[in-house]
Amino acid sequence: MPANVRIALDAMGGDHGAAVVVPGAALSLLRHPDTEFLFFGDEAVVAPLLDREPRLKAKSKLIHTTVAIRMDDKPSQALRYGRWKSSMWLAIDAVKKHDADVAISAGNTGALMAMSRFNLKMLEGIERPAIAALWPTMKGDSIVLDLGASIGADAVHLVNLAAMGSAMARVLFDVENPTVGLLNIGVEEVKGLEEVREAGAMLRARNSTEFRYLGFIEADDIGQGAADVIVTEGFAGNIALKSAEGTARQLSQYLRSAMNRTWPARLGYLLARGAFQALRDKMDPRKSNGGVFLGLNGVVIKSHGGTDAEGFASAVDMGYDVVRHDLLAKISHSLARDRDAISAAKASGAAS
Amino acid sequence: MPANVRIALDAMGGDHGAAVVVPGAALSLLRHPDTEFLFFGDEAVVAPLLDREPRLKAKSKLIHTTVAIRMDDKPSQALRYGRWKSSMWLAIDAVKKHDADVAISAGNTGALMAMSRFNLKMLEGIERPAIAALWPTMKGDSIVLDLGASIGADAVHLVNLAAMGSAMARVLFDVENPTVGLLNIGVEEVKGLEEVREAGAMLRARNSTEFRYLGFIEADDIGQGAADVIVTEGFAGNIALKSAEGTARQLSQYLRSAMNRTWPARLGYLLARGAFQALRDKMDPRKSNGGVFLGLNGVVIKSHGGTDAEGFASAVDMGYDVVRHDLLAKISHSLARDRDAISAAKASGAAS
Repeated sequence: MPANVRIALDAMGGDHGAAVVVPGAALSLLRHPDTEFLFFGDEAVVAPLLDREPRLKAKSKLIHTTVAIRMDDKPSQALRYGRWKSSMWLAIDAVKKHDADVAISAGNTGALMAMSRFNLKMLEGIERPAIAALWPTMKGDSIVLDLGASIGADAVHLVNLAAMGSAMARVLFDVENPTVGLLNIGVEEVKGLEEVREAGAMLRARNSTEFRYLGFIEADDIGQGAADVIVTEGFAGNIALKSAEGTARQLSQYLRSAMNRTWPARLGYLLARGAFQALRDKMDPRKSNGGVFLGLNGVVIKSHGGTDAEGFASAVDMGYDVVRHDLLAKISHSLARDRDAISAAKASGAAS
Repeated sequence: MPANVRIALDAMGGDHGAAVVVPGAALSLLRHPDTEFLFFGDEAVVAPLLDREPRLKAKSKLIHTTVAIRMDDKPSQALRYGRWKSSMWLAIDAVKKHDADVAISAGNTGALMAMSRFNLKMLEGIERPAIAALWPTMKGDSIVLDLGASIGADAVHLVNLAAMGSAMARVLFDVENPTVGLLNIGVEEVKGLEEVREAGAMLRARNSTEFRYLGFIEADDIGQGAADVIVTEGFAGNIALKSAEGTARQLSQYLRSAMNRTWPARLGYLLARGAFQALRDKMDPRKSNGGVFLGLNGVVIKSHGGTDAEGFASAVDMGYDVVRHDLLAKISHSLARDRDAISAAKASGAAS
């Protein structure tokens, strides 16, 4: 049995702070007893909550700080007042110092990314970080990246995203050779997609043993489970995700109001409530909570700021999984192979 | 009573060609008797279908051509063999020659755009065309543009999209002063969004009397009806639309399978079938069928290639509406005002 997974938590992050973080960690610990936690936050707030979870408390250490990053601060502001001492910084710093294997925060995304980058630095060969998350599909889950860590991507960055995303798919989905698709639009001969086409050519030429490149995928096929990993630039990825989330919310609003309009509908709803519950479970955004920051020398996970304990527990579960299956080592390995492959492709391209 | 609305139809376009185009036109004619049609296509195919619709036939003229654009040809190929003589080209050409007020095709999008641009040319001050369509929301419909006519957009292009989209909203929604939002992602201080920010500043400075600029909107708020008009660059717009369509399809698949799983669910479904029908109507993609090409000297509408007669009729209805309310004149008027406003803003910017 390997050592415990050590998880550093920003106990003050998110809309509800420690009131969600502590019970969320307790839920995840039930599923993964081989975990231990470092909580960073205000002792006066966190300690009483830990007292209510004796099982969790026995596996936890609380490090006191009163500095917490606010949800609406700009990254530069957050860095100015929160570096070295905020709960968010200290959680990341625990990863940097090898006191923890992964840091998780439900706080301000921009600040978390800026601090992670500043403190952990980028992996060799990666210039920009990415955010990857699970996207529920008809065939299970897919991984979509980048969801908005950086805007604009050249072909090499897209190829790196494919390598990092497929390493994550091998870890989380337990598949040897995950499929990868490049998000594109179905309009031919439109200018401006050179980098996507070039990335496609590079991925095809790479002929990887670590993933199988399927070609371009349109956004309406993501939900059908068209590929294990969907690679895209951050602006488009963020918009794809938010558009899907918005549509899911809209349709559940429609459904609720339709089911409330007439008495046969209300009665039908009662009879079919098991089915509606199954549907709600399928659509539950808490189950796919947790954006993994990739490309850094260390793993940091962002939970939705507004989630509840169950949702935060999903982000902690994600942290457990990526550590237990050694995501970082697998990514580094993939990137090294990619660097070789890209150099080889360039050399043969130059020769031809 | 003004003259009839004259609609040119590419009778050979789409997956089903005249078998959908002719009955679709007949349906729309029932709703708008002050319409007349020019059908372009193979007489041997189209004439028998028109014979079955005597009411439509009385308001129609059929112009024979055997050349039809294939759905999967590249625009350049389509232009090579289809210029001057294909059903698609001739429908557009009828608009150019003022024989028709609008052209509608369910054919190949890229070819339709290339031919429209080649034949009709761009409006003064517009360098690139856009595709606008209706997006069903909790508050009715919104207009989203650009949905993929061109990739990448500078600030001036985004401002032009706002002017064209709000003219369309005034025409279709009968509002004096539609609201406009710029699609953006909620990540602060990320590089690469300069053009979106610059467009936001220009729209704010413009202080238009023709629309009300609301600021940035994230993709999950489109479906809540956050603005009458959502402006974005074509790659992101296409991905937002396809992602929403894919999610809607995925959720209706989930719902269908959940309602089929147990006998109480099936019974509940029967009782609530009126509610489910209302939901299906709300989500019916046929009702929002019709992408309007904007920025050209003439109106061209693209119907989904795979739609049925009811869906094609929606695209014809859209054509009727934009002609009846003089969309093109309103757009030209808005753009002229915008040019003045942009020049003024530049002059004052230079002076400050």
